[in-house]
Amino acid sequence: MNIVPVDTKLDLVLKRELAVPVSLVWRGLTEPELLKQWFCPKPWGLSDCRLDLRPGGEFYTVMQDPEGKQYPNTGCFLEVIREKRLAWTSTLIANYRPAPPVKEDDKECAHLAMTAIVSIESIPVGTAYTAHVMHGTPEQTKAHEEMGFYDGWGTTITQLEELLKQ
Amino acid sequence: MNIVPVDTKLDLVLKRELAVPVSLVWRGLTEPELLKQWFCPKPWGLSDCRLDLRPGGEFYTVMQDPEGKQYPNTGCFLEVIREKRLAWTSTLIANYRPAPPVKEDDKECAHLAMTAIVSIESIPVGTAYTAHVMHGTPEQTKAHEEMGFYDGWGTTITQLEELLKQ
Repeated sequence: MNIVPVDTKLDLVLKRELAVPVSLVWRGLTEPELLKQWFCPKPWGLSDCRLDLRPGGEFYTVMQDPEGKQYPNTGCFLEVIREKRLAWTSTLIANYRPAPPVKEDDKECAHLAMTAIVSIESIPVGTAYTAHVMHGTPEQTKAHEEMGFYDGWGTTITQLEELLKQ
Repeated sequence: MNIVPVDTKLDLVLKRELAVPVSLVWRGLTEPELLKQWFCPKPWGLSDCRLDLRPGGEFYTVMQDPEGKQYPNTGCFLEVIREKRLAWTSTLIANYRPAPPVKEDDKECAHLAMTAIVSIESIPVGTAYTAHVMHGTPEQTKAHEEMGFYDGWGTTITQLEELLKQ
């Protein structure tokens, strides 16, 4: 497994300890029916998703705002290491094809060029969860932080933990 | 090894039969000192390159025009399957980080969002070589074709074959 260094000017990192075992967290990260229940901070939701769990496989999600407006997103998995690491990028779609540029109409959706590496590891309390999100410029990093990265991802991780505890 | 379908609206494909064995073609594709001798259509040249041959590894090249002006490019390897397939993308740099947007000054260099999959296979005459280059929009595909994709890649493959025959 590659070690990917953190660049403090370009990366956002979120670490959490979850009181659930690694095997369950992996299921939460990779099973569509579970993902739909936690992947968006409520009252937003995930109305659809498909995960083709292989390097080069599609990661398709449709976020839904409280008014029911839908925001489809397509990304590409880069690393799928069972119960250890899941990495994907928004810059590619299925089979590593470059993502088409964002249309002007969709700019409000603030599509960001990013690569996310989510690592999980067994610890006495349950699971150490790390999200390492990489960007191409300090401006994109700042934009993602100002969009509420820490709040948003933090909230969804809490949603994941609560779902898995049930 | 994933099968990646060709999208005729978005992809450019070049196929050639080379009268050299697969093992030698692989060396030509992956050894910097060999790459420098064929990767650019002469009188352009490759003044520097580094290949970190692993998924997520950097693919760094510096092209040089006949006046000596240098054009550095950084990409990222996606698949490295010895003597079978080499895939990389210009949309990411080392460790799958999104590539920074191209600066206005460099636009003349026509940086394209693309993913290239080069496959090689042993055949009686030597090696079947296929370059499958994927883009995100028909406009990018057309731009790449008009930049001289078939001539350019065709010329470099001839340069590769001639180098390896020596």
